[in-house]
Amino acid sequence: MRKVYSLQIQYPEQTREFNSRLTKTGRRSLSHSISQSSTDSNSSGDSDAENLEDEVSPRDRLQINFKGNKDFCVKNIKLADYGRQEIELAEDEMTALMALRKSAQGEKPLAGAKIVGCTHVTAQTAVLLETLMVLGAQCRWAACNIYSTQDEVAAALAEQDFPVFAWKGESEDDFWSCIDHCVNVEGWEPNMILDDGGDMTHWIYKKYPHLFKKVKGIVEESITGIHRLHHLSKAGKLCVPAINVNDSVTKQKFDNLYCCRESILDSLKRTADVMFGGKQVAICGYGEVGKGCSAALKAMGSVVYVTEIDPICALQACMDGLRLAKLGDVVSQVDIVITCTGNKNVVLREHMDLMKNGCVVCNMGRSNTEIDVTSLRTPELAWQHVRAQVDHIIWPDGKRVVLLAEGRVLNLSSSTVPIYVLSITATTQALALIELFNAPEGRYKQDVYLLPKKLDEYVASLHLQTFDAHLTELTDDQAKYMGLNKYGPFKPSFYRY
Amino acid sequence: MRKVYSLQIQYPEQTREFNSRLTKTGRRSLSHSISQSSTDSNSSGDSDAENLEDEVSPRDRLQINFKGNKDFCVKNIKLADYGRQEIELAEDEMTALMALRKSAQGEKPLAGAKIVGCTHVTAQTAVLLETLMVLGAQCRWAACNIYSTQDEVAAALAEQDFPVFAWKGESEDDFWSCIDHCVNVEGWEPNMILDDGGDMTHWIYKKYPHLFKKVKGIVEESITGIHRLHHLSKAGKLCVPAINVNDSVTKQKFDNLYCCRESILDSLKRTADVMFGGKQVAICGYGEVGKGCSAALKAMGSVVYVTEIDPICALQACMDGLRLAKLGDVVSQVDIVITCTGNKNVVLREHMDLMKNGCVVCNMGRSNTEIDVTSLRTPELAWQHVRAQVDHIIWPDGKRVVLLAEGRVLNLSSSTVPIYVLSITATTQALALIELFNAPEGRYKQDVYLLPKKLDEYVASLHLQTFDAHLTELTDDQAKYMGLNKYGPFKPSFYRY
Amino acid sequence: MRKVYSLQIQYPEQTREFNSRLTKTGRRSLSHSISQSSTDSNSSGDSDAENLEDEVSPRDRLQINFKGNKDFCVKNIKLADYGRQEIELAEDEMTALMALRKSAQGEKPLAGAKIVGCTHVTAQTAVLLETLMVLGAQCRWAACNIYSTQDEVAAALAEQDFPVFAWKGESEDDFWSCIDHCVNVEGWEPNMILDDGGDMTHWIYKKYPHLFKKVKGIVEESITGIHRLHHLSKAGKLCVPAINVNDSVTKQKFDNLYCCRESILDSLKRTADVMFGGKQVAICGYGEVGKGCSAALKAMGSVVYVTEIDPICALQACMDGLRLAKLGDVVSQVDIVITCTGNKNVVLREHMDLMKNGCVVCNMGRSNTEIDVTSLRTPELAWQHVRAQVDHIIWPDGKRVVLLAEGRVLNLSSSTVPIYVLSITATTQALALIELFNAPEGRYKQDVYLLPKKLDEYVASLHLQTFDAHLTELTDDQAKYMGLNKYGPFKPSFYRY
Amino acid sequence: MRKVYSLQIQYPEQTREFNSRLTKTGRRSLSHSISQSSTDSNSSGDSDAENLEDEVSPRDRLQINFKGNKDFCVKNIKLADYGRQEIELAEDEMTALMALRKSAQGEKPLAGAKIVGCTHVTAQTAVLLETLMVLGAQCRWAACNIYSTQDEVAAALAEQDFPVFAWKGESEDDFWSCIDHCVNVEGWEPNMILDDGGDMTHWIYKKYPHLFKKVKGIVEESITGIHRLHHLSKAGKLCVPAINVNDSVTKQKFDNLYCCRESILDSLKRTADVMFGGKQVAICGYGEVGKGCSAALKAMGSVVYVTEIDPICALQACMDGLRLAKLGDVVSQVDIVITCTGNKNVVLREHMDLMKNGCVVCNMGRSNTEIDVTSLRTPELAWQHVRAQVDHIIWPDGKRVVLLAEGRVLNLSSSTVPIYVLSITATTQALALIELFNAPEGRYKQDVYLLPKKLDEYVASLHLQTFDAHLTELTDDQAKYMGLNKYGPFKPSFYRY
Repeated sequence: MRKVYSLQIQYPEQTREFNSRLTKTGRRSLSHSISQSSTDSNSSGDSDAENLEDEVSPRDRLQINFKGNKDFCVKNIKLADYGRQEIELAEDEMTALMALRKSAQGEKPLAGAKIVGCTHVTAQTAVLLETLMVLGAQCRWAACNIYSTQDEVAAALAEQDFPVFAWKGESEDDFWSCIDHCVNVEGWEPNMILDDGGDMTHWIYKKYPHLFKKVKGIVEESITGIHRLHHLSKAGKLCVPAINVNDSVTKQKFDNLYCCRESILDSLKRTADVMFGGKQVAICGYGEVGKGCSAALKAMGSVVYVTEIDPICALQACMDGLRLAKLGDVVSQVDIVITCTGNKNVVLREHMDLMKNGCVVCNMGRSNTEIDVTSLRTPELAWQHVRAQVDHIIWPDGKRVVLLAEGRVLNLSSSTVPIYVLSITATTQALALIELFNAPEGRYKQDVYLLPKKLDEYVASLHLQTFDAHLTELTDDQAKYMGLNKYGPFKPSFYRY
Repeated sequence: MRKVYSLQIQYPEQTREFNSRLTKTGRRSLSHSISQSSTDSNSSGDSDAENLEDEVSPRDRLQINFKGNKDFCVKNIKLADYGRQEIELAEDEMTALMALRKSAQGEKPLAGAKIVGCTHVTAQTAVLLETLMVLGAQCRWAACNIYSTQDEVAAALAEQDFPVFAWKGESEDDFWSCIDHCVNVEGWEPNMILDDGGDMTHWIYKKYPHLFKKVKGIVEESITGIHRLHHLSKAGKLCVPAINVNDSVTKQKFDNLYCCRESILDSLKRTADVMFGGKQVAICGYGEVGKGCSAALKAMGSVVYVTEIDPICALQACMDGLRLAKLGDVVSQVDIVITCTGNKNVVLREHMDLMKNGCVVCNMGRSNTEIDVTSLRTPELAWQHVRAQVDHIIWPDGKRVVLLAEGRVLNLSSSTVPIYVLSITATTQALALIELFNAPEGRYKQDVYLLPKKLDEYVASLHLQTFDAHLTELTDDQAKYMGLNKYGPFKPSFYRY
Repeated sequence: MRKVYSLQIQYPEQTREFNSRLTKTGRRSLSHSISQSSTDSNSSGDSDAENLEDEVSPRDRLQINFKGNKDFCVKNIKLADYGRQEIELAEDEMTALMALRKSAQGEKPLAGAKIVGCTHVTAQTAVLLETLMVLGAQCRWAACNIYSTQDEVAAALAEQDFPVFAWKGESEDDFWSCIDHCVNVEGWEPNMILDDGGDMTHWIYKKYPHLFKKVKGIVEESITGIHRLHHLSKAGKLCVPAINVNDSVTKQKFDNLYCCRESILDSLKRTADVMFGGKQVAICGYGEVGKGCSAALKAMGSVVYVTEIDPICALQACMDGLRLAKLGDVVSQVDIVITCTGNKNVVLREHMDLMKNGCVVCNMGRSNTEIDVTSLRTPELAWQHVRAQVDHIIWPDGKRVVLLAEGRVLNLSSSTVPIYVLSITATTQALALIELFNAPEGRYKQDVYLLPKKLDEYVASLHLQTFDAHLTELTDDQAKYMGLNKYGPFKPSFYRY
Repeated sequence: MRKVYSLQIQYPEQTREFNSRLTKTGRRSLSHSISQSSTDSNSSGDSDAENLEDEVSPRDRLQINFKGNKDFCVKNIKLADYGRQEIELAEDEMTALMALRKSAQGEKPLAGAKIVGCTHVTAQTAVLLETLMVLGAQCRWAACNIYSTQDEVAAALAEQDFPVFAWKGESEDDFWSCIDHCVNVEGWEPNMILDDGGDMTHWIYKKYPHLFKKVKGIVEESITGIHRLHHLSKAGKLCVPAINVNDSVTKQKFDNLYCCRESILDSLKRTADVMFGGKQVAICGYGEVGKGCSAALKAMGSVVYVTEIDPICALQACMDGLRLAKLGDVVSQVDIVITCTGNKNVVLREHMDLMKNGCVVCNMGRSNTEIDVTSLRTPELAWQHVRAQVDHIIWPDGKRVVLLAEGRVLNLSSSTVPIYVLSITATTQALALIELFNAPEGRYKQDVYLLPKKLDEYVASLHLQTFDAHLTELTDDQAKYMGLNKYGPFKPSFYRY
């Protein structure tokens, strides 16, 4: 999810669409809502809804909002009040996006934009969607994941005449039908796409090629979606400029370095309940995620060993006071092994055979390939499910290895994504849409772009306010001396931060 | 010296050459030798030399080495033994460069290379020069700085028939004469340039344009030299590919982040002799240098405030637990102010008027522009020179502000550059020469290039050995999964480390 | 719970016994079991037991173990197998206590000891109890808390003929009856007491004064119990030596500094779900708990302010790089306020009136006095219960203050106590019992003692093994030079660690 | 010097007096002045004095100050102006002591005190001496070290009619003569002693036993002096109460933990000029000094191994994330070895035989016993003196071990003591004198006492002001709840901070 170099991963066309919906279940950007408000709220708010109307699919029920509008499809429009409350709480916390909404609402930079979107439908994304509307856009929306929709939030959006087609527990057929409802409207043609996974983009590309050609720009959030865009681009079939918002500096640092610095501790405590002080830990990979995990565990009094393939990252580990080793050389002495490589087969059965009793193994990297869990499903090893996310694998001699989340990404399931991170993502998406929609002819060609540095800087500046942080402004004289525009961008493209 | 964006600085052509020699006096890459072995050694080793032969300029004396060769010009060939000892000590410490020498000496990748060089002439560069020879190159060398030559090292090189033209205390005329001696040789035409400051390059460009056209490549070390190359390039006059070794990842991280993390403490202790614990410190600028200084002082128990103009760096400061403020808002409460911006007029008289008694002010950035020292040279303020590098500026009410190094870059004068950093520089230079000399037609055009990432990684891997650090190697299967070559490069060009 | 100076707290006799049982509900030493194994296991293991036998009190049911013994009173003897499994898992983790068991089982240092105990009855204490038996003691046991007993563990003990009288959900009458069952036995008189809260001690003191006089020693775990012993001692009524195991160095450091360093992060994440990076935090009190909390939050990128009344601790905060302030001066700018003082009325309504929207307030100190929660129960403030342990207090202007655990000690309810800490406690208790039981006449008078330093050191050495840590041993010559016994104690009593 | 347990060291009576003067040359409390102002000033200020009057001993020259007084003996009274300037600079920096002077000058708590003192005579102690006078005392003073006197400061004191008998470069005979001049005065009998090393105390005890009996109290600074007092006490010959100011909390933490955290880095840079990042370091001993050194090096990116004999300190090292090992097991892999044990023969020849090329060895502990330097003085090893404080020991195979300060305490010679630490010492001494002089009959018996905690707290509070730190005050209600006096002391005697 976070490795830049994975842009080059082989990703066979035919399996992609099928997988994307399934694997997206665990995508990080939704986990905040799932583990917090959504579950809580559903269990209370949904209760009668579920009882009364669960048997009938939302597709087969006609619902009308208070204003008489019926251009939406949600679980239960009656949940709108409760959803509105959730959205208002989220507005409170997403101060940067709200500041953007406020500052640009006069200008209406998205007037004329007709955006079709396919993202998680949660309180946080609702704040984004309503911001897009305030800035002048018309929108139609579907969920990018069949499980992640907060039904009360969808209802609240629908109540405000926002055409949303999403509910928790869609079937595969529902999923594509909802997407199609966004695009296939008489007298309305989308000119912008906001996508998270590439399903909306590909649906239009395949089913409505005449519409695809008219689109002004695509903003894509996920690594999977970016792969698919690069694929199209290489095949010469991308006729639209796209912005990859995933690799913006601000998002990357927060999603990976800063967020993992906190979530590794949180995830390990909630699952394995270990004490960190004095523990020996092997961290495989010293990219942003590995750096975050190492910093946190070192600070908590663990002794950290790092494995790396890249000598530059390896040298950074050394200068940060960590021992660089091969996994095989330290695996028999460590108490915890954490993978953060984005690669596959990093922790093998031969490593786990060497682990000491009680050693904890988990994955903070990408997907579920890093630990060879398959090798543990053999007759001589017993599996004991101890708690949610925790299995003991028991060797014939009684040795137990503690496997977390069955080798899937740990902090997706065992921690929450801070609102702050979600806010950075949403603000970045909004700015990318504005940029693509308003860019003068010729600024963007039919290719996949990174977020312009100036916008990256703007996202950061909006989020500084939370910290009561005060930026310094260049004087004219200083700007001239540095050869910079006074208002940025402040760094060359290759600057490493 | 270290700001990437300073590539765009206005640098009027006519003042450049004059300044470059003067300001280079304080260049960092020489300070290790100056403050350590060189001074010590000169005071002992030079003693009779100075007495006997100081009056006569080396240019006017004929010296012959043991083998009867006289194609060199040094202070005193008799110092050779002592210099050889220094070189051998340096070889001991520059294990990465020696490893490169050893691994490539069979292959002789520089066979046919005729390199003219202009760098500091110290024990560490001698190890580089002799490495170039072992790898097959013919070389002729001058000093890039009129003060930095270690005379005994130059003698030792000359004794080995290495044509070196350099001594400590050259006049301006000597300086250009030495450079000319490198180029202007009958029957020998240079085809590579290794430069530190651009003087050799410009001498050939101006005086020997026919030779300049035949050069295969230029390796330039300094920011000043890189400016000059960009200037040529923009003017369409750069007919040779050049590699900017200054901005390689490895060099940048060591020169700035890791080196400053240590040298800020060292420099402050040696000059102001402050206790760090409990002190409040304002650090202006949160680039690599500011990050290094902040990390060190925070670790020593100081309370650190950061000022920044770039919101992304500012957000990093926040996430690192530092308060982001404007200088004016905290200057009256802090005990130490450190500039690391590369900009000018960052600390103004109005700030210093607000400082409390005993506040220490210093510059870890670039050149001497960051603190407005000129504003302190007014009649109402008294200057008291307390120690080397330490002045007390006394306000009419008795308040003292402690100014270090008169506002010039502090760690140039008050700390030493670790051998490790010099070793990274030298190894990078050697690899850049090999790359340019052996690159197939068409790989490099007439432009200024960054060091190819694969070589950057190679430099790092050579230096890992010192730390007893063990890299992991990708399996074929993993490399395929990641879409990577097994031996690197491992990251896309925009990776931020 | 952890403040040494609270030894001097006024604690009116008449309210003590009543309170002690109620407040002990939240005592830390049980929270590991409660939040982890116990709850999980009960929900599975207890299920039929609860259905079948929940209506009848264990006191009114006759149960017989497999060996035909009925000298016990537990919820359901059939849970024994499940409990044994829990105990075995705990044995695996409490390596230090098991090492003690193994090394002393030959010697049987507790042969002849008749111990009555009143502690939590959990898997971890079961390992202690069975260790005492292996070392030769006879024991009878009750629970010190009406809610904390793991019924399956009690069953497993009973199955092994260990006379235990404890179940989850005792009434107050049950509670005293169980205690009485331990003491009031024909033909058996206790000579040692292991207590946690002082209830067993006081029961014997009041009800069986003739037995009290024959007791050889008391080991008391809790601060409350130690207060009560000091009370007796001052009144001249303590006719038995007692050891205060709470204030041993090893226990204190682990219970407070090291444990809180981890549990503050864990507790805040699980409840308030805040991101720590960039947050401003006020920590009231810089004792061991405050030091642990500060270190953790500083490491996670928070800006920490400390309040203190003691200038020495205050100076430590300064030297650790924290700003020392009065709460009133920073409360309007911070994002989180944490109390760690052991005092009362530290955070007042006037402070909370100044807090900004979203400020989180919590207590890591002792009892529930630190935050003036009562002042928040007024008509103009609305309380919104958001999640377990989380209430939003809403001011008339809409400002929300996030109150955690209603002001009670946060990590009691929202985190777990690492096994490692429980192991240190149990090992310390065992050693204190051995020491008191075997001490030569006259070593201990009728007073309350700290654990002898040599035993403190021994506990530490037993726990070092987990970390694969290797101690150095003094040579005879070195021991002589230092004036030390080769095997300790190594420090004078006033050494501060 | 700093180990508490060294109280029990065997210290044969007959060698003590002879040694004390010699070894005290390197005592830390003087090194600030030596390495900074003193050397600088002497080289300038002393120049003509030395030329003119160096041949004649001050004892043989009659000098008269401006007021006509001649009751003093200094090198050159003419240096008084220069010395006054130095004292004034010191006053500026010793704000806590000056605050004490100011607050107590009205009360004159030392009125009637007749103090004889024997300490270093530097600008900082001059601020103390003049404070004692302002507080009402009469004083007579000698130097405790034959090399450490700042002659210009002594002159400045003499010029103000302060009877001082001290100069730089005293002979042994001079030394005792000066001490005798303080005591042996007609019509004046001392009633208080301020001592640093015990020489004044023993001189009076032996030569003027009748005076000794009349003394009200002794304040002793050094560990050596405290040994001697304990010796007297054990022998039943101490007829005077004494306060050991060395072991006060504030002084200990600053002298050892906080000061060494900074001086280890400073000392290593100035001597061995190593880069810390990535280095492996063995630190022998994890007391306050070892804790300070470890914290600093870990923060700078070193990998730290700790050796310990005390399991409690060992466990602390583990929880701080350091690997605990035996020296023999890691010595062949580390780059730096630092001793901090206070013991002898910690680093043996057998360890040094195993070290790798370039390994740095140094001592931050006590005296020169920790590294077995004698074992290196054998024919097969060559010594090469590289720089001040740096020797290379060369093994037959060419391996070099870098020995710093010939194994003597490193930061005594290669770093400076911050003024802040000197200020804490001086303030503590003044308060101890006031306490002993004013204590009601019976508070102190004929024994050696630690500084009362309340005074320790007062010293801390005076020093907080430098940090703009704001203490919180207990309310009456809170004080009552805690059972504390509102103004301290705040902790029981065994509190560990």
